[in-house]
Amino acid sequence: MSEESNGTSYRPGLVQAGRNIEEESFRIIEAEMGPHSFDPEAWSIVRRIIHTTGDFEYAQLIRIHPEAVSAAVRALRGGAAIYVDTRMIQVGLSPWRLQWFGNPVFTPAADPETHLMAEKLGLTRSVAAFRKMGERLTGNIVAVGNAPTALLEVLRLWREDGVRPALVIGVPVGFVQADTAKDALWEADRIPSITVKGRKGGSTVAVAVLHALLELAQKESR
Amino acid sequence: MSEESNGTSYRPGLVQAGRNIEEESFRIIEAEMGPHSFDPEAWSIVRRIIHTTGDFEYAQLIRIHPEAVSAAVRALRGGAAIYVDTRMIQVGLSPWRLQWFGNPVFTPAADPETHLMAEKLGLTRSVAAFRKMGERLTGNIVAVGNAPTALLEVLRLWREDGVRPALVIGVPVGFVQADTAKDALWEADRIPSITVKGRKGGSTVAVAVLHALLELAQKESR
Repeated sequence: MSEESNGTSYRPGLVQAGRNIEEESFRIIEAEMGPHSFDPEAWSIVRRIIHTTGDFEYAQLIRIHPEAVSAAVRALRGGAAIYVDTRMIQVGLSPWRLQWFGNPVFTPAADPETHLMAEKLGLTRSVAAFRKMGERLTGNIVAVGNAPTALLEVLRLWREDGVRPALVIGVPVGFVQADTAKDALWEADRIPSITVKGRKGGSTVAVAVLHALLELAQKESR
Repeated sequence: MSEESNGTSYRPGLVQAGRNIEEESFRIIEAEMGPHSFDPEAWSIVRRIIHTTGDFEYAQLIRIHPEAVSAAVRALRGGAAIYVDTRMIQVGLSPWRLQWFGNPVFTPAADPETHLMAEKLGLTRSVAAFRKMGERLTGNIVAVGNAPTALLEVLRLWREDGVRPALVIGVPVGFVQADTAKDALWEADRIPSITVKGRKGGSTVAVAVLHALLELAQKESR
């Protein structure tokens, strides 16, 4: 079983069974990966992306801002909200991990009011969704797995409107604009970010990064 | 923008904008893929998986049963239900494609009654979920993106209980049991199936396959 929630709530027994499969998976990944230069926190993120995708190439593609993990852990432990661009990310996050620090998850693009705003301003819903959130993103976590335009809007909010998310996870997948949007996030070097080079990414990758960060936050709170 | 729904309902204008990005993405994929031996229907499935993952390796990994596409098109056009193992697949399917033939989507693992059955019988939820559906799967489509045990249960239902889904999409991702479960599906050569070799897969891949099949069903109905 991989990293996704199946949409069910917390049950310790099944969680433990899942944990054993997860540990065995991690052992296999460590063995096949061999020596690498990731620090333990970065590795825990990379390993979880590999676990979720079956794709070791992510070890070459990952980009983690030096302040990303500490900013994420601080925000999550403080109960920060997680704003995402797809319902897939929202339902993929495991409820039992989210309840450790009570982090709420929002998909503003699925909000009917966002639709009205998108129509009025002639924007795509993903862009309208994050523009509407605006200052509410400050101090919270943003995760984009699908829409490069949504990621570019978050960068614009940072640059022009002084909006300051604690962390931006930018992993939109695709062949048009996704790579350049991710490069633009990485080049905005004051923004604590986690992203990947090139075309790969997606909602399951965003979920993996968030799960890894929640685990790190829980570990440091013990 | 990739293949996922952002959880919003049908809006022709945005769908058209997405279509243009999709067509441009497909042109890039065709150009980089070069010559291949897929027939047009198989290629439309492979191309959409590449579009969703950014990963050309799926062209080497894909396995499509000779009867899979015709069985899927027939079932979808007849209004068949789609039974999935994760909420991520369910919310990733675009409502506007599903409404073409009115195909309902169910995630039995998210049903509270399934939880009771799992506890009573000492099964994981994913296994209990498909066992509970039993004969209801006959004539319908099953898609597994996460839990190899769920896929193995569907094979058992076919073998022991005479349950006959129209198509089984088996793309669980992972390092423990996922590859062998997918091999077992492929070796059950009477079952119309779509699967991949090895560890890769996941909910976004399942969504891509289903979107490709819905597009094929719609095309053939014109």
